[in-house]
Amino acid sequence: MKVTHIEHIGIAVRSLDEAIPYWENILGLKCYKIEEVADQKVRTAFFKVGDAKIELLEATSPESTVAKFIETRGEGFHHLAFAVENIESALTEAEEKGVRLIDKEPRKGAEGMTIAFLHPKSTGGVLTEFCEDKN
Amino acid sequence: MKVTHIEHIGIAVRSLDEAIPYWENILGLKCYKIEEVADQKVRTAFFKVGDAKIELLEATSPESTVAKFIETRGEGFHHLAFAVENIESALTEAEEKGVRLIDKEPRKGAEGMTIAFLHPKSTGGVLTEFCEDKN
Repeated sequence: MKVTHIEHIGIAVRSLDEAIPYWENILGLKCYKIEEVADQKVRTAFFKVGDAKIELLEATSPESTVAKFIETRGEGFHHLAFAVENIESALTEAEEKGVRLIDKEPRKGAEGMTIAFLHPKSTGGVLTEFCEDKN
Repeated sequence: MKVTHIEHIGIAVRSLDEAIPYWENILGLKCYKIEEVADQKVRTAFFKVGDAKIELLEATSPESTVAKFIETRGEGFHHLAFAVENIESALTEAEEKGVRLIDKEPRKGAEGMTIAFLHPKSTGGVLTEFCEDKN
């Protein structure tokens, strides 16, 4: 597969309103979008940094995987997303090489990206996402 | 301060030898260097991806903070490192704005970088490093 760059780093936060000032006022990054992703039960805030992004994730329901993550692990790193050139072939290749997939088929994520998650049991404990921008 | 890009993402692993094949054979990244950082009691392996790097961290002693991290949290994300234009002024600014610093003065890290860590209590649970390449 061809991984071109880190698309984003997902970070779980209790509250976007409380978290955003650190990223803006200390690090000097600019939140350019807040977007709700209803099927993942999260609100996301995006910051561009180099050719990557930071994606803050706030749960919109106690049933959200992000709410459960914070309950057990606390706030912090949630996932690492790579931009890949062809997400379908990247998933096929990963599965053929023994990686356990969370999403066997790509689906729509934030920012109109086509995304799929790999299971952290297969990726050294790092919840990993593949992203392709098909727009 | 001026953060230009993500310099690297640090990932704690039990064994470089066991971890590297995932990054090379599945993701297609190339390990371009293995370096021991004696004062942090780690061996590191680097992969370039876009304008960022992945840094795998293996403890070389049970006293290493990476060994203690894996004991309590398991393998996975360890820290997030930003490239900054002037590390001394970035640290001063962060401290003035209430961020708790782990390193009040910059020190030498892997790859000859000048580095300093911020405390995760001040950064939303994300152990954060500033890096400046003064070479």
